[in-house]
Amino acid sequence: MPSRKDLANAIRFLSIDAIEKSNSGHPGAPMGMADIAEVLWRNYLSHNPNNPLWMNRDRFILSNGHCAMLLYSLLHLTGYNLTIDDLKNFRKLHSKTPGHPEFQCTPSVESSTGPLGQGLANAVGIAIAEKVLSAQFNKPGYNIIDHYTYVFVGDGCLMEGISHEVCSLAGTLKLKKLIVFYDNNGISIDGNIKEWCMDNTKKRFESYGWNVIADIDGHNYKKIQIAIEQARSLKTNQPSLLICNTILAYGSPNKSGKNIAHGMPLGVTETLLTRKKLNWQFKPFYIPKEIYHQWNAKDIGNLRELKWTNKYNEYCKIFPALSDELQRRINHTLPTSWLTTIKNLLINMDDATSMSTRQASQYILEKITYILPELLGGSADLASSNLTLVSNSKPINKFLYGNYIHYGVREFGMMAISNGISLYNGFIPYTATFLVFMDYCRSAIRMASLMKIRNIMIYTHDSIGVGEDGPTHQPIEQLSSLRLIPNLSVWRPCDKIETIIAWQHAIENLHTPTSLILSRQILPTQIRNKEKIESIHYGGYILKDPLDQLPEIILIATGSEVYLAVETFNQLSSKYKIRVVSMPSIDTFEKQTQEYKNHVLPSNITLRIAIEAGSKDLWYKYIGTKGHIIGINQFGYSGSAEKLFVKFGFTVQNIIKVIEKLFKNYT
Amino acid sequence: MPSRKDLANAIRFLSIDAIEKSNSGHPGAPMGMADIAEVLWRNYLSHNPNNPLWMNRDRFILSNGHCAMLLYSLLHLTGYNLTIDDLKNFRKLHSKTPGHPEFQCTPSVESSTGPLGQGLANAVGIAIAEKVLSAQFNKPGYNIIDHYTYVFVGDGCLMEGISHEVCSLAGTLKLKKLIVFYDNNGISIDGNIKEWCMDNTKKRFESYGWNVIADIDGHNYKKIQIAIEQARSLKTNQPSLLICNTILAYGSPNKSGKNIAHGMPLGVTETLLTRKKLNWQFKPFYIPKEIYHQWNAKDIGNLRELKWTNKYNEYCKIFPALSDELQRRINHTLPTSWLTTIKNLLINMDDATSMSTRQASQYILEKITYILPELLGGSADLASSNLTLVSNSKPINKFLYGNYIHYGVREFGMMAISNGISLYNGFIPYTATFLVFMDYCRSAIRMASLMKIRNIMIYTHDSIGVGEDGPTHQPIEQLSSLRLIPNLSVWRPCDKIETIIAWQHAIENLHTPTSLILSRQILPTQIRNKEKIESIHYGGYILKDPLDQLPEIILIATGSEVYLAVETFNQLSSKYKIRVVSMPSIDTFEKQTQEYKNHVLPSNITLRIAIEAGSKDLWYKYIGTKGHIIGINQFGYSGSAEKLFVKFGFTVQNIIKVIEKLFKNYT
Repeated sequence: MPSRKDLANAIRFLSIDAIEKSNSGHPGAPMGMADIAEVLWRNYLSHNPNNPLWMNRDRFILSNGHCAMLLYSLLHLTGYNLTIDDLKNFRKLHSKTPGHPEFQCTPSVESSTGPLGQGLANAVGIAIAEKVLSAQFNKPGYNIIDHYTYVFVGDGCLMEGISHEVCSLAGTLKLKKLIVFYDNNGISIDGNIKEWCMDNTKKRFESYGWNVIADIDGHNYKKIQIAIEQARSLKTNQPSLLICNTILAYGSPNKSGKNIAHGMPLGVTETLLTRKKLNWQFKPFYIPKEIYHQWNAKDIGNLRELKWTNKYNEYCKIFPALSDELQRRINHTLPTSWLTTIKNLLINMDDATSMSTRQASQYILEKITYILPELLGGSADLASSNLTLVSNSKPINKFLYGNYIHYGVREFGMMAISNGISLYNGFIPYTATFLVFMDYCRSAIRMASLMKIRNIMIYTHDSIGVGEDGPTHQPIEQLSSLRLIPNLSVWRPCDKIETIIAWQHAIENLHTPTSLILSRQILPTQIRNKEKIESIHYGGYILKDPLDQLPEIILIATGSEVYLAVETFNQLSSKYKIRVVSMPSIDTFEKQTQEYKNHVLPSNITLRIAIEAGSKDLWYKYIGTKGHIIGINQFGYSGSAEKLFVKFGFTVQNIIKVIEKLFKNYT
Repeated sequence: MPSRKDLANAIRFLSIDAIEKSNSGHPGAPMGMADIAEVLWRNYLSHNPNNPLWMNRDRFILSNGHCAMLLYSLLHLTGYNLTIDDLKNFRKLHSKTPGHPEFQCTPSVESSTGPLGQGLANAVGIAIAEKVLSAQFNKPGYNIIDHYTYVFVGDGCLMEGISHEVCSLAGTLKLKKLIVFYDNNGISIDGNIKEWCMDNTKKRFESYGWNVIADIDGHNYKKIQIAIEQARSLKTNQPSLLICNTILAYGSPNKSGKNIAHGMPLGVTETLLTRKKLNWQFKPFYIPKEIYHQWNAKDIGNLRELKWTNKYNEYCKIFPALSDELQRRINHTLPTSWLTTIKNLLINMDDATSMSTRQASQYILEKITYILPELLGGSADLASSNLTLVSNSKPINKFLYGNYIHYGVREFGMMAISNGISLYNGFIPYTATFLVFMDYCRSAIRMASLMKIRNIMIYTHDSIGVGEDGPTHQPIEQLSSLRLIPNLSVWRPCDKIETIIAWQHAIENLHTPTSLILSRQILPTQIRNKEKIESIHYGGYILKDPLDQLPEIILIATGSEVYLAVETFNQLSSKYKIRVVSMPSIDTFEKQTQEYKNHVLPSNITLRIAIEAGSKDLWYKYIGTKGHIIGINQFGYSGSAEKLFVKFGFTVQNIIKVIEKLFKNYT
C-alpha cells in the first residue's frame, strides 16, 4: 500500500512532468503544497468527481492560481473528467489545462485565478453566499446548504491589498466555514520575502478576528490533520487561517527553497534528481494503480451526494415551495412576475417628472428586491450616494438571511467578493461606488468579464456633474475604459426609462457582467411611444427625427447629454434636419444586425456629432472624419456642475455653434 | 489670551463657515481633527509659511482629503499665502481652495488627495525619499535632510487595501520618521463602522512592526502632545501610528458622532447651535487678532529656515560637489553627461541584433543608473521578468543610500509610493509590473497624471505575447485604457532604438508620467538612418515609404507588430505602394503640428490599416471608415505566443490578405 508521501508525490510528479513537457509553468508551489492537498482532498473535502456541480459540495479555491498543476493533478487523481492526456496538454492552446485555472474550461474549477489575492476574495464571496443561502433555505434537521470553503493562498495573495479588505470583512461577518491554507514558504519571485515583507501574519489575521493556527509543518500529514480538525470544530464563529510552513519545490535537491523553482520548469537533470530524492521510480505521467486507487473519490463522492440527495428529497417533499424556489435560484430562472414588474415600472415611471438616473435606479431596486430575493448587493460605504439601500434591504451582518452587504471602504474587495457570490449560484450580486473609484476594482471587473458571469455594477456620479468634489472625484476616462473590456456590458441611461431597460438587461443577461453608469444630477425624462421604448433594447436608437424627411446631421449622445441633444433638436428643427440618436449601450448596439445599425446611422449621413461628458476618442468609430466630438480629454475642476458643463461646452448654445460650423465647412 | 480650544475652534469655524458658504463640503472631519492639528501644527510641525518649498520642511499629508478645509484653515491661520477670501471661495471654479487638496494649486499642498488610502501611500514614498536622500547627502554634523513626515488618515484610508500594502512595507523599511494620526471616530459614510469593520487596528499595525500608541484622547492637547513626544523620541526604527479617539463634528450638538455630519454642510441652525455650544462668539470668517497672533508661524518659520540655511551654507562650503549635486537633483536638472549617454546608447545599440524591448530597457537602465543616481525604482516582485534590477542596483533595505526598492507583490502601493517619491523632489522614480496588473494600480497612475509629475512605469509582457500564462495574464484593453488617461505619456516601442527614445522622453519630461509598454518576446531591430532616428521623437513617423512615389496605402503599427508591417512592405513593395508608420506614442504624435501630422498621414490616403495586438477601438481615429484594424477585441488564450499571434491574425500572410481585400473593395 502506498504511503501518504507517495500519494502526495503523485501530485508532485504529475505537476513536474506536465510542466517539463510544456516547458512552461510553476513547479515550486505544487511541490510545496502537495502534502497539504493530499490531506485536505483525501480526508476532508466533500465533493463528488462524478458531479462537479453538486449543489452542496465543499468549494475549493486556488488563489495562487499559478499552482494550477496541483489542482489539475488533484482533479485527475480523484476521478474528475480530466485525463492523463489532458495533463500532457498543459498550457496548450484550447486544452482543458490552461496555464492558470479557468472557470468553465476545466471541471470543478470554481473560479478563474491567477491575479493574486482575487481568488481569496472570491472565496470570501462564496463563504458569504453559503452562509446567506443556508440561512434562507435550511430548516431544522435539514441543513441542505452546509459546506466549507477551502482556499489555498501564497505569500503574493497576502501581500496584495485586497487580502486586507476581504479578510477584514470575513472576520467582521464571522465566516466560520471559510478555512484558508497559507503556503508559508518564505519565497516570492524576487527571493526571500523577509527583505520586503516582515509581517507577523498570525497577529495580522488575529487583528481581523480570525482563528489562526500557526507553525503547522506543511509536510507532516498528522500536523495538517490536527489543524484542520481544530478549524472545523471551532466553537466560535471565526474564519480560520492555517499557516503551513512549507518548502518551495519540496523534494528538489538543488532548487527547493529557491525562487528559481517558482516559475520555470525544473529541467531534465533536476527532475531526475528529484525522482531519485523522493524515491519516485515511475516514468513521466505514470501513476501506479494502487496510487490511483487510494486517490479515487468517485465512489465515496457518489455516496456523499446520495446521502445528501436523500435528505434533499425529503426536504423537497416537506417544503415544496421552498425547494422550488431554491431550484429556481440555482437554475438562474427569473420569477414569473419578472416581466410584469418591468412592464409596470415602465408604465408607472413614464411621466414627465425628472429624476437623476441614480434615483431611478433606487426606485427600480425598491421594486425588484421584492420579487428577486436573490439580489445580494451593497455599496463601498456610499449607500446614501449610490442609492443602493432600499426599504427592503436587510444587511447580512444583522440578518443572516439578508440581502444587503455593507462592504465598507473596500472597492476592489467588494467587486471580487461579488464575483464569488455570482460564481456560487443562487444570487444576483450587485456592487456600487462612484464611477471614478471603479479604477480601484478594475481588475476584478475584468475577471467577471473573463468568466462571463452575471454581476451588476452601479457606478454613480458619472462625469464632471460630480461638481465641487473636483478632479479627483470626476470621472473622465472611466466610462470609455470600461467599454474597452471584452464581454462587459456598459449602460449609461439618459433618463429613468432607459434606466429601467438597463436594469432589465443587467438582470436578464446571465453570462454578462453589466456596469450601470448613473448620473448624480437630475435629468429630464424623454417622451417616447411604446415602440421607441422597445427600441432602447437595441442599445442605440433614433430618439428624434425630422418629420417626414431624411436627416442631414446626426447627434449621438449618451446619459446626461441626451437632453442637450434633444433640446438642440427642438431649437433647430426648422433650420436643420437633425436626427438624435440615444446610445445608452454601445456594446449592445454593436450586437445588432448590420441592417439595424445602418438604419440608425446611415453611412451616407457623414455629418455627425457625438456628445458625451467624458473621453472623446472612442467616438471616432461612429463620427468618422467629417464629424465632431464634444467631449473632455482633460481632467476636470472643482466647481459647480452647472459651471463645469458650460466650461466644457455641454450647452445647447455650444452644440448649435458646432452644428453651424460643421455645415459651413461642409458646404 | 485665547485658550488652546479657542485656537482649535478657529479651524472648526473657518471650516464650518466655508462649507456653509459653498453649500458643499465635509465639516465632520475638520471639526473632529482640529485639536490634533492645533497641537501638531503649533508645537511640532517644522515649516515656514514664507517658503512652502523649503527643502527641509516637515511634510504634512492629508490622506483623508475630504478634510480639505482643515488644511486650508491651517494654511490661512499660520500665514501662508491663502487669504480669507480664498477660504470664502472654497469649492468655487478656479479658486485656490478646491474641494479636495490639489498639488500645485494651493501653497504647501504636498499631494493631491481624496481617493482614500493614496495619501498615506504618498507619505510612505515621501518618508522613503527622505530616508534615502539623507543617507545620500548628510554628513556627520550636517543633517541637511532631516525631517518628519506627518499624515492624517481616516477610517476609509485604513479600510482600503492599499493601506495594508504600504504600511507593511513601511514597517519592513523601518521608516521611523513617519508619524501617522488615525482619526478614530468610528463613523464612516454608511454609519458606525463596527458593522463592517471590526479590525483591531493596534494589533494590525503591530503586526507590520509599527510603534502604535492607542487610546489617545484626540480632544485633549496634553494627551496628543505626550503621544507625539513618544513617537518622536522612539529608540527603535519603527514608524508610528497614533490612534486618536475623536468625535466626528465635535461641538455640533445634534450632528456630532453621526454620519450625516460627514459630507454635508451643518446647516444654518446647527451652525448657530455649534457656535453657542463651543462659545464661539464671532461672525462667520472672523478670527480675532489674538487668535491669528497665536497661530501665526511666519516668524518662527523664518527662524527655523534661517537656522537650517546657516548650516546648509556651511555644508555647501565644506562639500561643494555634494551640495551642487543635491541642488541639481532638487532642481530636476539632468547631468551634463545625459545627452552624451543617450547618444552613445543610440550608437552602441544600433546594430542588427534582436532583443525584446524589455531587454533593451534593462540595457538602458544598466547604463543610465550610473549617471542618474536620482533613479529610485523597483518592481512588484517581478524583477527577473520586468528586468528592472541591474548590476548597479542597490536595494534600500540593505543599503540606506541605495537606488532600488523591492516593492513586494504590491502594485497599487508601489505606484502610489512612487508618486510620493516623485513629489518629494530629488528623485526620478520608476515602477514595474506586467502590463495586465497595471489594472491594480490604475487609480495611482491617474493621480500621477492629474498632478503632472514625472513618474516612469515599466509595463512588460505587453500582449498575447505573454503566451502560456493565459488570458488572466494577457493584456488586451490595458494599452488603450492607458492612452485614455489625460496627461499620461504612453510609449510602446518596436525595437531597442525606439526604446532608447522612449526612455529619453520619460526622463526628460518633467511634468509628465510615462508608461513604457514593453515586449516579453524578442523583436528584430529596424534599419534607420540618423534622420529617421530623430523622427522617433515625434511619437509617430514614416518608417518605410515607396521609393520616389507617393504611397497608396498606410500601415500603422506599434511595438511588436511593427516588424510585421515592415515585412509586409518588403514582400509587397513591387505590387503596392505602401507606407509603414511606426507610432510608438500616440500622445506624443498628437502634440506635433498639424502640418507634420498631415505629412505622416495625408488625408487623401484613406486606405489605412492599423496593426496592434490589443483593443481596436481607439484606432478608428486614424483609420477612418475605409480602413481596417487588425487588433483584438476579446480575451486571449493559454498557448504559445507564436500560435496566438497566428490565431489572432498577426501574420504577414493575414496582413497581405487584408490589403488585397481592401484594394479589391476600394477599386
